[in-house]
Amino acid sequence: MKLYNSIGPNPRFVRLFAELKGIPLELQEVDIIAGENRQQDFLKLNPAGTTPVLETGSGDLVSETTAICEYLEALHPTPALIGQEPFSQAVTRMWWRRLDLMVVQPMTHGFRAAEGLDLFKNRVVCFVESADELKQQVVDGWRWFEKYSPGSRYLLGDQVSVVDLLAYCFAEFGEQVGQPVPADCKRLHVWMQTMLTQFRK
Amino acid sequence: MKLYNSIGPNPRFVRLFAELKGIPLELQEVDIIAGENRQQDFLKLNPAGTTPVLETGSGDLVSETTAICEYLEALHPTPALIGQEPFSQAVTRMWWRRLDLMVVQPMTHGFRAAEGLDLFKNRVVCFVESADELKQQVVDGWRWFEKYSPGSRYLLGDQVSVVDLLAYCFAEFGEQVGQPVPADCKRLHVWMQTMLTQFRK
Repeated sequence: MKLYNSIGPNPRFVRLFAELKGIPLELQEVDIIAGENRQQDFLKLNPAGTTPVLETGSGDLVSETTAICEYLEALHPTPALIGQEPFSQAVTRMWWRRLDLMVVQPMTHGFRAAEGLDLFKNRVVCFVESADELKQQVVDGWRWFEKYSPGSRYLLGDQVSVVDLLAYCFAEFGEQVGQPVPADCKRLHVWMQTMLTQFRK
Repeated sequence: MKLYNSIGPNPRFVRLFAELKGIPLELQEVDIIAGENRQQDFLKLNPAGTTPVLETGSGDLVSETTAICEYLEALHPTPALIGQEPFSQAVTRMWWRRLDLMVVQPMTHGFRAAEGLDLFKNRVVCFVESADELKQQVVDGWRWFEKYSPGSRYLLGDQVSVVDLLAYCFAEFGEQVGQPVPADCKRLHVWMQTMLTQFRK
């Protein structure tokens, strides 16, 4: 299988997910800084213009990180990263979406509205006037996870899950773009050390 | 199974999803206008304070519409509303998330930032200064679906899917709160008539 890959936390998240399952992915690099993902050749693969895109062994295409990870999980169930039976899958997907809506999306929009504005202003609608509120929502989101996430070693328990991988990629991205995990999130900082030890290359 | 239910497009989406599968749900009403979802009794069920919440037959709890629908699909696979095998599931989930990010989330935040501000300003961060841009993103999102969604009778093809149900609930919600499907989206308006004929009570 081939992954249309680029810089940024979303492709990295999918690469990590595949790597943990031992799924080899041929990487084809897309230069998003140069806007290659907004040109016709790429838009034929994904009209939404986002990376990553998975090309399956039979040449079919899947975009959106959630859909790609679920597809890889269905083809390679072990190790389970999205739960092992319907209820644990439900719990994992619940936390996955909470992370997406509370942290990943506002961080993405907060970046586009401020530090990333020059890159994004001619590509997508940017919520410039709400940059501070978007970043505040990320802070609130991490603090909510600090308080409520049920895990110990990992966010949901003793086993690593898709939620850890997504949170890790966006925690590191946030660190790079002025949106670090708040210093008062002690549990999250311990978790982050665990993740760094295990996954940093 | 029991659904902690309320007004609004998200609980409605889950109710429709269950109804199409013939899954009976006992409804327990939560008065979100009065803020019942932000009080301790409800926060014990879902600390994120959102509706709906599913209580399974064994008393376990699942929040987030994506997780609830996936769980119901796993327990009652027929009729398949999220695809029938891994690749069609991947395609469905891809379009599901595109709809979520391009229409559902900006519409939700646009509502909270403007028409819904009085209700939400003391509950969540509202992006007041970006209300117009949020609503513009919804317009752009519907136009993108008008152009790219692959279906004919339904958004993804000849069979109804989870994407139709979510789009229908938010198209009707948008209509009610000043964010209608743009008039120039001819295909979507034909699709909407199909949905109204089939689903309006």
